[in-house]
Order: sequence, then C-alpha cells, then structure tokens
Amino acid sequence: MISLENKIMTEGRIAKGDVLRVDSFLNHKIDVRFLCEIGREFHRLFSDCGVNKILTVESSGIGVACMTAQFFDCPVLFAKKSKSSNISSEVYTAVAHSYTHGNDNTLTVSKEYLTPDDIVLIIDDFLARGEALRALVDIVSQSGARLVGCGAVIEKKYQGGGDELRGRGIRVESLAMIESMSEDGIVFAHQAR
Amino acid sequence: MISLENKIMTEGRIAKGDVLRVDSFLNHKIDVRFLCEIGREFHRLFSDCGVNKILTVESSGIGVACMTAQFFDCPVLFAKKSKSSNISSEVYTAVAHSYTHGNDNTLTVSKEYLTPDDIVLIIDDFLARGEALRALVDIVSQSGARLVGCGAVIEKKYQGGGDELRGRGIRVESLAMIESMSEDGIVFAHQAR
Repeated sequence: MISLENKIMTEGRIAKGDVLRVDSFLNHKIDVRFLCEIGREFHRLFSDCGVNKILTVESSGIGVACMTAQFFDCPVLFAKKSKSSNISSEVYTAVAHSYTHGNDNTLTVSKEYLTPDDIVLIIDDFLARGEALRALVDIVSQSGARLVGCGAVIEKKYQGGGDELRGRGIRVESLAMIESMSEDGIVFAHQAR
Repeated sequence: MISLENKIMTEGRIAKGDVLRVDSFLNHKIDVRFLCEIGREFHRLFSDCGVNKILTVESSGIGVACMTAQFFDCPVLFAKKSKSSNISSEVYTAVAHSYTHGNDNTLTVSKEYLTPDDIVLIIDDFLARGEALRALVDIVSQSGARLVGCGAVIEKKYQGGGDELRGRGIRVESLAMIESMSEDGIVFAHQAR
C-alpha cells in the first residue's frame, strides 16, 4: 500500500532495539482518517471470505480493527493481555511474548464471543516475530471458528513471524512489508498479488 | 441515550465487586455499528466546540474514541498505561488507580502530540470514581491545551467521579448514567439537557 509506505518513510522513526516508531499515526496518536483507508484495503483483500468477526489484541490493534470492521459490518473482539474482572470466567488463553515490553502476556478471550459459527479475520498493527498473531491463531483454533487469515498493517519481514505463519498455510496480508531497516533507511519488500 | 440504556438493560450483567459487565458490546467484544451511534451522539453534544483532538486511555477507550473521532474528523491520542519503547522520551504523566484491576497506572502521553494549540475532548468507556478521567484532565492541563469536556459512555453516578469533575467546572457528558445498581436491577439517572 503505497500511501502507507510513504507515511512510514515520512513519519516513522527508527529507535534503538530495532523499534520502528509509528506513534504519529498508528500506536499512540491515531490518524483515524488514514486508518479508514487501511480498513478499506483489508476489506478489499478479504471481502469475499464471509468474515463475521475481527479478532485483535489490546491495545494498538483496536483502532485499526474497529476501522476495518466498519467495512465488513461486523464486530471486533479484542484479546485481553491479563485476566480481567470485567469478562466472564470461561476463556480461551494463549501465551505471547512481547519483545517490545520484555514480558509474557497471557492473551485471553471469552468463550462466549468466539464459537464454531465464526469466520474470523485476525488484524494487528505490527507483525514481527509473530508472537501475538500466533497466540491469536491458537485461540481461533481452540474455539473451532474458521480463520480466513491475518492482516497486519506493518510487517517486519526479516523477523520471520509472517513467513512462519504462511509456511503453516495461513494467509497473511501485510500492507507494508519491511525487508530491512537500519540507520541508512527502510527497504520495503513487495508481496505478489 | 435511550438505545444505550436499553442495550445495558438487555446485555449488561452485574458481577461481584460492583462491576457492570458490558463486554458484549463495549470492552471485549465491540459492537462497532453501535459505537458509531455513540460517536454520533458525542459529536452532537460537542460539535460546536472546535475539537481537534480526542484523548483517551488504553484499552477500552480506544474503540469508542476512534468511532467518535470520525465525526470530528480529528485524530485520537491514547494515553499508555506504562512507559513504552515505542513512544518518545518526552512525556506527560499522571497516576490513576484502577479499581477494576487493583493497581496504579502511570498514564503517559508524548509531549509531541499534545500542545497548547490543541482543543481536546476526553472520551472514555466508563466513569466511576473518575481516576482515569482525572489523570487525563491533569495531562491536558500540563500540556496547556484547551479542554472542552469529557464524554463517558457509562457513568456510575453513585461513585461520585463525574460530579467531582463537574464541581470543578469541567463539562462532563455521560450517555448513560447509573443512579444505582444491585441484584434487583439498574436504575438510570437522567442528565438535564
């Protein structure tokens, strides 16, 4: 998605620890109008799959998932990173390590809201080593719902998480794929369509 | 907002610890179409205030803030609950106690994205004792931005947080105000308009 690559080139900043900061539009300040374009693109890619639920994980996934869900006219379900008193006790869980925060999170989804009747698209902001997406795929699998694929706004392809999922036969669509990233700049890969 | 009161009556569940569970549409599964109606109502209430930024806090505030921001055609800024490596180091902070999770959170907002030029509407899903909104108001005040008011989807009025903010001259609009809540049911208060 050229407009996204341009936005990353213009606004993204490379921080230490191999972090791409896109807090100006994606994961702190949210450019809602731009995320609407991103949602439209995910819809274009998955429009013929019968999606009736979008699954994401708090927090940065929620904005893009909501904007995408409008095009599918379906609800969003976001996995919690900790057991909360405001969801029911019957839950699916899967552990995901966060390299950004340096800790393990037990992603939790209420059984009430994910069932074998669901046709699920997983959406997240970043795909790097794939820890969060792998845990969400695991949760979909536990529920018996049908997974149509995963959509990531930005994939750091060189970290391998996306290709590992693709290798398992899961459709993964990333709107910007970073081939390499260093002080010299960002090089994008382009997915065959 | 009658449709919201009806939704709370139909789908809300009272859990132990004085918790109102609305995880079927607001803070786990998100009814995006309904949140769009909520956003439209916040826009009706604050449409003449010149809002150019919506401030909320992760995680449950993000969905409703994004849906509301579409009507104002402005970005959302969400406070982080912990210091993160993916925002810059120059930040505003304020501490908020979470009664739901039983811990203190240091809400953090990058100075880069909140400035004296901003005209801010604070949006959150719940208003009970007001800890989160008070911290967000504090952060707006630190930034020198102008605050037009706070919008909460559901206010538990008997917990006093909303009235404390109103007593300080801050405009607080809640789309459903709960006067009392027990096993016998929920009684709504109605705000004079």
